[in-house]
Amino acid sequence: MMEITQLRRNPRIMRDIFEAELAQLGDNLVQLSVKVHEAIVNAGEALLTADVARAQQVITADDAIDELAREADDRAVLLLAQQAPVATDLRIVVSALRMSATLERMGDLAQHIAQVARRAYPSKAVPEDLTPVFSALQDASVRLAKRLTRLLETRDIAEANAIERDDDIIDDLHQDTFAALLGSHWEGTAQETIDITLVGRYYERFGDHGVSIARRVIYLVTGTDTQHV
Amino acid sequence: MMEITQLRRNPRIMRDIFEAELAQLGDNLVQLSVKVHEAIVNAGEALLTADVARAQQVITADDAIDELAREADDRAVLLLAQQAPVATDLRIVVSALRMSATLERMGDLAQHIAQVARRAYPSKAVPEDLTPVFSALQDASVRLAKRLTRLLETRDIAEANAIERDDDIIDDLHQDTFAALLGSHWEGTAQETIDITLVGRYYERFGDHGVSIARRVIYLVTGTDTQHV
Repeated sequence: MMEITQLRRNPRIMRDIFEAELAQLGDNLVQLSVKVHEAIVNAGEALLTADVARAQQVITADDAIDELAREADDRAVLLLAQQAPVATDLRIVVSALRMSATLERMGDLAQHIAQVARRAYPSKAVPEDLTPVFSALQDASVRLAKRLTRLLETRDIAEANAIERDDDIIDDLHQDTFAALLGSHWEGTAQETIDITLVGRYYERFGDHGVSIARRVIYLVTGTDTQHV
Repeated sequence: MMEITQLRRNPRIMRDIFEAELAQLGDNLVQLSVKVHEAIVNAGEALLTADVARAQQVITADDAIDELAREADDRAVLLLAQQAPVATDLRIVVSALRMSATLERMGDLAQHIAQVARRAYPSKAVPEDLTPVFSALQDASVRLAKRLTRLLETRDIAEANAIERDDDIIDDLHQDTFAALLGSHWEGTAQETIDITLVGRYYERFGDHGVSIARRVIYLVTGTDTQHV
């Protein structure tokens, strides 16, 4: 006991412990992001091909995402308690807390997309006319999720900027879904209109959350707060 | 300078400073909650009466909510840096960080409802048949927001439980909106179907966020984690 206490009083050793714990927290976020990427890949596939087994897989897998987010949070709070970080270190830990909540939410949104696919089964929730726009939404969202993992691994600002561009594409495509629903060619049922409206909204929020994480990383790396722009 | 340093080394004085800062953080959250209550009151009124001026007021007022949330966050981070709280104190500060983000999001949802009202003007976004269900959604949401302020002021668990019940009512009413859209009597346009779908979703999320805060307070007061049930 005496020895551990002495070790903990050595600032260099304290710093090494802090760095190691911070690295583990970073790993937790990357793991979360990998799971979110997997969830959106499968949710979109389930949606576009009416694959109910795959939809169910996404819904079931969401528990693991929630659990990972909880682990990340616990680690962050433990870090705050044991290391009492200040300045940049504190900013990193607080950001991690927020990013884990955001990633958890992105998992929920993928799950919601899967739930729509499951409810519509054996029909497709997205009618033929709208398949191209939802395929494009899916592609942009998968790309964004992939970039998020790389961003969390590398802190490369170029990835953060590319995420912002993917989100702009998602926003434009989201507007296209409304244009299609409000155009003279739309003859879908109320259920189809509801599904398209909700799924479009889920993708849009998915993109927004990706941007929120991108901006947090930009802030951590450059000190520039683009979060509230 | 010497004197302040000495004061800060006195544990009792440190504790007093901590308590005072924590009380101010609590006040920030109450102020936020009051603004969120005001926002949902006005957003629902704007929605149900096609009052575009009131809708605009909610949209404009959202900046003040964002600013208050930022203040609360800054105060919480400063508290972490200066006081390095542990155990229950740390739990309170971390919860405050999360609650401010949630309240900020509730403000956004009220703003989204106001935006739908503004876009539909001079028409009403909610057709006559659906006015009763949206009035009921509005009543339950306003009640929930009011309770949230009282809960943050008093930490009375009875308010937290009542918030859960209000949210159950909101969820049931949300289902009623789908039932109406999918019933044989529905003859609304695609735009109306979109608006009802989105506004219903905004109210539902508003209620969910209220519950998330209620559970955090229950956790702080009783130590029982109902957040992940």
